[in-house]
Amino acid sequence: MIRQLAIVGIGLLGGSVAKGARAGGLARRIIGVGRASERLRPALDDGTLDAAVTDLDAAVREADFIVLAAPVLAIEGLLERVWRAAPDGALITDVGSTKRNIVRAADRLAARRPLAFVGSHPLAGSEQAGYRVARADLFRSATVVVTPTEATELAALKKTTEFWEALGARVTSLDPETHDRTVAAISHLPHLIACALVDGAGRVEPAALELAARGFRDTTRIAAGDPDMWTEIFLANRDALSASVEAFREALADLQRVIDAGGVDALRAELARIKATREQLR
Amino acid sequence: MIRQLAIVGIGLLGGSVAKGARAGGLARRIIGVGRASERLRPALDDGTLDAAVTDLDAAVREADFIVLAAPVLAIEGLLERVWRAAPDGALITDVGSTKRNIVRAADRLAARRPLAFVGSHPLAGSEQAGYRVARADLFRSATVVVTPTEATELAALKKTTEFWEALGARVTSLDPETHDRTVAAISHLPHLIACALVDGAGRVEPAALELAARGFRDTTRIAAGDPDMWTEIFLANRDALSASVEAFREALADLQRVIDAGGVDALRAELARIKATREQLR
Repeated sequence: MIRQLAIVGIGLLGGSVAKGARAGGLARRIIGVGRASERLRPALDDGTLDAAVTDLDAAVREADFIVLAAPVLAIEGLLERVWRAAPDGALITDVGSTKRNIVRAADRLAARRPLAFVGSHPLAGSEQAGYRVARADLFRSATVVVTPTEATELAALKKTTEFWEALGARVTSLDPETHDRTVAAISHLPHLIACALVDGAGRVEPAALELAARGFRDTTRIAAGDPDMWTEIFLANRDALSASVEAFREALADLQRVIDAGGVDALRAELARIKATREQLR
Repeated sequence: MIRQLAIVGIGLLGGSVAKGARAGGLARRIIGVGRASERLRPALDDGTLDAAVTDLDAAVREADFIVLAAPVLAIEGLLERVWRAAPDGALITDVGSTKRNIVRAADRLAARRPLAFVGSHPLAGSEQAGYRVARADLFRSATVVVTPTEATELAALKKTTEFWEALGARVTSLDPETHDRTVAAISHLPHLIACALVDGAGRVEPAALELAARGFRDTTRIAAGDPDMWTEIFLANRDALSASVEAFREALADLQRVIDAGGVDALRAELARIKATREQLR
């Protein structure tokens, strides 16, 4: 059991970690850290947090388990402060949706002072943001990717895995670089594409959006995601995203070539192959 | 009230027209036409059809309302035969998801023998196909686009509109060319994009599909659509689709430029603008 769980950032993800940990009795004491104390008020009022503070150093000083749930570009910056303030033996994880930069920064810090860090990325979220949409069961049946490196201690990896499993998640492990390429392909690219679809539809036929059929609404639902969050994600994972866009452009060009060639059988075979691939998804 | 409603093709759309017309008492007699009589059997057995025939000429000879619900490339070919067999005064419509080729072919036939034709496209469908998924309420609250031309008689347009409204649909009118550009942008392009996303993800990181997050599953759900149907649609609307792909590629390239420039404020403004556009969708 965790003695003191410090969660930095009490939004959708951090708030859901806090609620889930509270509901599951995973920690004796849960402290939330935020930049503005009035934003932490609801989580204190509903009993999710035992304490809500704006002083990061004070919050992590006595914590044995620290979850960094700030926006992805902010996490890297927080690491150095956490590294200075956290007690020996503390375990640090995060919820950032890109991992290479964060994990490599933690490895550099650990070379100076050995503290356990395990990168985590819960594939759970929503178009909505903020504590008011946080849920104790947000991670139930969600996948959480942990991203150990050659420097990660096995005990820390095990403890992080058990933490997410206790919140109901399935945990899978990838090295940080493979993780970033993978989420670029399955999460960041679809988001970017949805944005380009919405924008492109209006360019072709300004009235088109009014008629938008169900397929269009489903495909572009994620384009209504939080611009702040996605700005950070796109910038943090720029390189892997760019490689994914390239692969996508090639796949699109290949399909266009088959359509332009006009052969019914060839196009049907291509679409049947892709349908079969899609149907393998859970 | 329709005396004899002939529906050519008793799949998802044709079957749903038949069920809806039956439920609403819109026709005294409903005849289904198909290429194989055993495929029509279920619609006859459940009382949706009064008769099921494989002889197109016999079915339309005494019909006053004819709905062509065959695959989109087949409809154009059916028109000539229907034009020969249908009685004077019959009204013909269809459910094809592209309209320019069909409507222009009907206009050419009408110049030789005046018969009323009004192109229709119900924006209702499913990844699933066939009569077993047909529903009497498929068109309830769906949009049906009718595509009259300068040659369309007002009475025929009115009757077609009332037919779809009686099935619960909202009817809107576009000229056939605008219709094709519009559905390319809001329906055919998203489908093509979803296919390219599924295919591209596997190229970047073969294991990526196993991790696919909710955003990816939503965005690519339509890639599991019927390959036969989509082959026909992509080929029938090739030109408008190609223009849509071009606009999409430009929108994507514009977004990529903003990401590559690395400016947080510029990217956030762009994503906020697109989010606002997306949120205008019903």
